[in-house]
Amino acid sequence: MNKQIMIRSLPQGNLAHDNFELVQGEIPKAQTGQVVVRTILLSQDAANRAWMQGATYRDAIGAGEVMSSGGIGEVIETKSDKFKLGDLISADIGWQEYAAVNESSAAKIPDFDGPLTHAISLLGVAGKTAYHGLINVPGIHAGETLVVSAAAGSVGSIVGQIGKIKGARVVGIAGGKEKCDWLVQELGFDACLDYKDESAPLRHTIGKTIPEGVDVYFDNTGGDILQAALFAMKLKGRISCCGAVSMYDGKPKPGPFGIPGLLVTKRLRMEGFLVSDYSHLDADANHNLSQWAASGQLKVVEDVLQGIEAAPGGLIGLLAGENRGKRMIQVAPDPR
Amino acid sequence: MNKQIMIRSLPQGNLAHDNFELVQGEIPKAQTGQVVVRTILLSQDAANRAWMQGATYRDAIGAGEVMSSGGIGEVIETKSDKFKLGDLISADIGWQEYAAVNESSAAKIPDFDGPLTHAISLLGVAGKTAYHGLINVPGIHAGETLVVSAAAGSVGSIVGQIGKIKGARVVGIAGGKEKCDWLVQELGFDACLDYKDESAPLRHTIGKTIPEGVDVYFDNTGGDILQAALFAMKLKGRISCCGAVSMYDGKPKPGPFGIPGLLVTKRLRMEGFLVSDYSHLDADANHNLSQWAASGQLKVVEDVLQGIEAAPGGLIGLLAGENRGKRMIQVAPDPR
Repeated sequence: MNKQIMIRSLPQGNLAHDNFELVQGEIPKAQTGQVVVRTILLSQDAANRAWMQGATYRDAIGAGEVMSSGGIGEVIETKSDKFKLGDLISADIGWQEYAAVNESSAAKIPDFDGPLTHAISLLGVAGKTAYHGLINVPGIHAGETLVVSAAAGSVGSIVGQIGKIKGARVVGIAGGKEKCDWLVQELGFDACLDYKDESAPLRHTIGKTIPEGVDVYFDNTGGDILQAALFAMKLKGRISCCGAVSMYDGKPKPGPFGIPGLLVTKRLRMEGFLVSDYSHLDADANHNLSQWAASGQLKVVEDVLQGIEAAPGGLIGLLAGENRGKRMIQVAPDPR
Repeated sequence: MNKQIMIRSLPQGNLAHDNFELVQGEIPKAQTGQVVVRTILLSQDAANRAWMQGATYRDAIGAGEVMSSGGIGEVIETKSDKFKLGDLISADIGWQEYAAVNESSAAKIPDFDGPLTHAISLLGVAGKTAYHGLINVPGIHAGETLVVSAAAGSVGSIVGQIGKIKGARVVGIAGGKEKCDWLVQELGFDACLDYKDESAPLRHTIGKTIPEGVDVYFDNTGGDILQAALFAMKLKGRISCCGAVSMYDGKPKPGPFGIPGLLVTKRLRMEGFLVSDYSHLDADANHNLSQWAASGQLKVVEDVLQGIEAAPGGLIGLLAGENRGKRMIQVAPDPR
């Protein structure tokens, strides 16, 4: 049998458990050009929630479908010349224990040292998003000040560490004192601002903590945090737009006030990117990320939940900011 | 005597005549390092209103001061080694018939063919803002689609014409059918969208008029027009942020919704600039603009009001969009 988690209804407000439904399906058969995989790991990403808002860089997803999710599976049946039995592939597998996948939308996981989870975290979308979105969009130079929001998350925790490796002063923005202390003490951030601390609003603390102004802001959140960062930018500052997690869950909210005016008076550059725009540079990213991890300069932080049933609660919790580092679901043991 | 227009009060909402007051002052005396000028021309710019909102790239201006304004004056007294009697200089002269100006904040108008008004329009801040903000910020290439807002204004009318010279398809956005017809018939725009036409909202017409998507959007307005343009951008489109006139007059309004999310999904780059950032390229700008005007490829559109008393109404009307091309005040005849 094939446990699958379907979308029962699209959320009107915050994502909730009753938007999903666990069903028992059949294990699919491969058609020509397809493989069937046993799901090993599923990635959990804020973008999963954004896909429920409508078509963007990919098709929207809707009620009655298996919930979409990137992941890693082991080939158990093949009608593809590209993949053989036992291959580990990455693809949009969805929240299910078995999936039929078209060969054109799957990629073999190359051999690498380290646990398979690294193919989702350090060497997966999270690591490459952090690397390309910092190094190849705004760039970062020694002596500059880098601010990153959702700093304890899968991407932010790597962005901040790359900033330190490159010689920048790194200030994180995260929710809660515990996360902030952890970022400074364990991951080597120079400072971290708690955006949930109502006694010290971010719009005040950011200027006090960074009197020199922000050279590069890596935005994972949008909303009020982006607003505060815009006011703290240095002249000619650069903003890398990675996503707007504050806008994905719940009702649409007005965007930051005064963006075009602030871009003019401070001569800022704001640029959005998708990790796939830089796939021609993935080999660089993987090489550097692997080296930094091996040398201990970069700590790989993973938050692994067990079993397909954990997927809905895992994503709901991720949107509420409960994870540290890269959250994923271990659906079956690593076969290697 | 020296007619001066003072700021009586800063506007709480839309700028109005009673925010200003005409007074009779003395003709000032030059201190060491200063010149006194007779005002010839005053530039009228939406930015004048923005200066009343607070300090930005320059000090804020406030009640009890002569209203600030760039302009051209003739030196009638000099205690400066830099300027001699009869020199024409550009400086922040303000709304007054005579002004004392520090030599460090004034520049001599170089000799050029054509009327002196061109030093305010084609070869002034308007022309150079259009040139640098299009050529040196996003760039524009033959075959691309360029959209410019406030297209009938001082900057927009030149941006669109440069776009045509460079081989782009050019679509203006302006208020009212008359302006739109004029932009197409007189200035050679390929199309123009009337953002005031409630029977054909911009958010619908922009996509129909530009099914191919917008490569470059030159934003003079911010607000709802920027919002509509964001949705019409092509993947990897570029946005040049020149100003946000929709935000200058009246109460602050929420900015466009979803900017960071749209920048990500469409991989857009938005960049603000000030004309002074590109002063090292002013010679290029002046050379090309003069050539295009001389050859008839670029029409210089000026809207000249007469007498210092016209300044308040001129600026109020400009903020309401009544001008075509570069609005300025002729305070005294061209002495050349």
